[in-house]
Amino acid sequence: MKVLIIGGAGMIGRKLSERLAKDGELGGRSISELALYDVVPASMPAAAKMPVKVATGDFPAEGEAEKLVAGGAEMIFHLAAIVSGEAEQEFDKGYRINMDGTRRLLEAIRHSGRTKTRLVFASSIAVFGAPFPEAIGDEFFNTPLTSYGTQKNICELLISDYSRKGFLDGISLRLPTICVRPGKPNKAASGFFSNIMREPLAGQEAVLPVSESVMHWHASPRAAVEFMRHAATIDTAKVGPRRALTMPGLAVTVGEQIAALKKVAGDKVAARIRREPDQFIEQIVAGWPRKFAAKRAAELGFKPDQSFEDIIRIHIEDELGGRIG
Amino acid sequence: MKVLIIGGAGMIGRKLSERLAKDGELGGRSISELALYDVVPASMPAAAKMPVKVATGDFPAEGEAEKLVAGGAEMIFHLAAIVSGEAEQEFDKGYRINMDGTRRLLEAIRHSGRTKTRLVFASSIAVFGAPFPEAIGDEFFNTPLTSYGTQKNICELLISDYSRKGFLDGISLRLPTICVRPGKPNKAASGFFSNIMREPLAGQEAVLPVSESVMHWHASPRAAVEFMRHAATIDTAKVGPRRALTMPGLAVTVGEQIAALKKVAGDKVAARIRREPDQFIEQIVAGWPRKFAAKRAAELGFKPDQSFEDIIRIHIEDELGGRIG
Repeated sequence: MKVLIIGGAGMIGRKLSERLAKDGELGGRSISELALYDVVPASMPAAAKMPVKVATGDFPAEGEAEKLVAGGAEMIFHLAAIVSGEAEQEFDKGYRINMDGTRRLLEAIRHSGRTKTRLVFASSIAVFGAPFPEAIGDEFFNTPLTSYGTQKNICELLISDYSRKGFLDGISLRLPTICVRPGKPNKAASGFFSNIMREPLAGQEAVLPVSESVMHWHASPRAAVEFMRHAATIDTAKVGPRRALTMPGLAVTVGEQIAALKKVAGDKVAARIRREPDQFIEQIVAGWPRKFAAKRAAELGFKPDQSFEDIIRIHIEDELGGRIG
Repeated sequence: MKVLIIGGAGMIGRKLSERLAKDGELGGRSISELALYDVVPASMPAAAKMPVKVATGDFPAEGEAEKLVAGGAEMIFHLAAIVSGEAEQEFDKGYRINMDGTRRLLEAIRHSGRTKTRLVFASSIAVFGAPFPEAIGDEFFNTPLTSYGTQKNICELLISDYSRKGFLDGISLRLPTICVRPGKPNKAASGFFSNIMREPLAGQEAVLPVSESVMHWHASPRAAVEFMRHAATIDTAKVGPRRALTMPGLAVTVGEQIAALKKVAGDKVAARIRREPDQFIEQIVAGWPRKFAAKRAAELGFKPDQSFEDIIRIHIEDELGGRIG
């Protein structure tokens, strides 16, 4: 089985490719080739058990999706996207990549005639818009309040329709916010959820711009990779025509995050968090989903992290070689 | 104020244009020109109080939306669509007209810079897919089970996003099934809901293919025109960012329809309904929404018909000149 990861240079793409390369198989089926595609070259996974191809390109460009599909992958992970903030500022760019690119991919698969192609699409909880109930259920409606969320929602709808028509076999996963996100601090409004864990663990100071009562919905990078792997091999007959699933996560407050950090890494590490309230960020975050009741995904075998302590331990293991700074 | 009706030759388009032509105004603003656009020429409304332009074209074709928007309408009713059955059979055609056409219209308005353009879009309860709760609430999720419903849902999302961005001022109305639909019996699976009223009233026999316990969601053509007029003049600040509204209707069973027909037109007329159960149609109809709790629309001033007897009386007044056959 050939596997293609579109968006293979991104954080999840990289972790997924490393896992697949190491395993050499997915759901008991041997992977004969792993193709990694992105706008910049994906890094080569270490010690891959199969040939790995790295390609770059402009995903939504004319003919690009056809070229990708011509590679013959039976399993496609589509993780490529213009992120939320950029899609909001660059309206045309966001629609071109997040919506038109996906549609072209669906069309290319449809016209390839390979109706059994499994497509796993990274959607987002941005398909939901405030006001929310206490916990957002699986049947709560989608009213995105960003262009990014709109684009993701449209892709979900297209994937359900193309799957229903039998053109392909798709599934959309609405991922929680990934925490602890590795790498450098970034300017995303959601960055602090990871910054206040990652930086103190690395011996650095981090800024907390919101109050400790702010609740948010989290999953570790490892959990996200497991969601992808499970979605790739799940019996979609059990999923039925409603192909978009909210992934299970952990709803924790910033205060609970900090308490978990103290427990795992000690008071000295947690003391590296500096409170610097920022009205602007507090306001943005107030419009985000806080908590879900993701029953369908749980029933279908998708598993959340066990605890926020675990989320921190996963970061220490996977990113810090087990050492706290 | 110039008004444009895209889909002006359709049943609702025709009734809306007649009403606007006769009134000469909308929400207290005088209509200086009424433009009717469709794939076939719209009929000229009688005794119009303003100049009426009739144009035909291929709506989603390159440059067509720009041409339409260049007409300078401040108020656009977009009622054009490939209907459900055809969109299901002709996949590309459905997406081209129902999705791409609408998107091109939105882009043309956006690029015209006329941000106050009010766009009233005819959506559909086909954005919902079974299984349903007893009554479908305003916050129930959209999981269309047809390509038509998918396309309508995508248009709703785009219209909300373009409105939120301030490119235009749009609103999407999910219309109930229109009953009594004038004209000839057609082969649509939903046709019988109207056939069993219209044909007996005109002295003809009609076939009822389902059991009398089947419940469905109805509005008269007159109510639909009122929904359009109200949506055209409503304060969208009150609607907020959730621009798609399920219109209020009447949930009645076929048995209640027949009882109403007896009451309004007598047993002799109702006796013209011939029971001819059709498993195939019964099965299709079982997947359709039956009843809604359309609270938001009601709070925003959209009004359903008073009773099914009224729906029948409206048909007799508007289509039969007050005479029963």
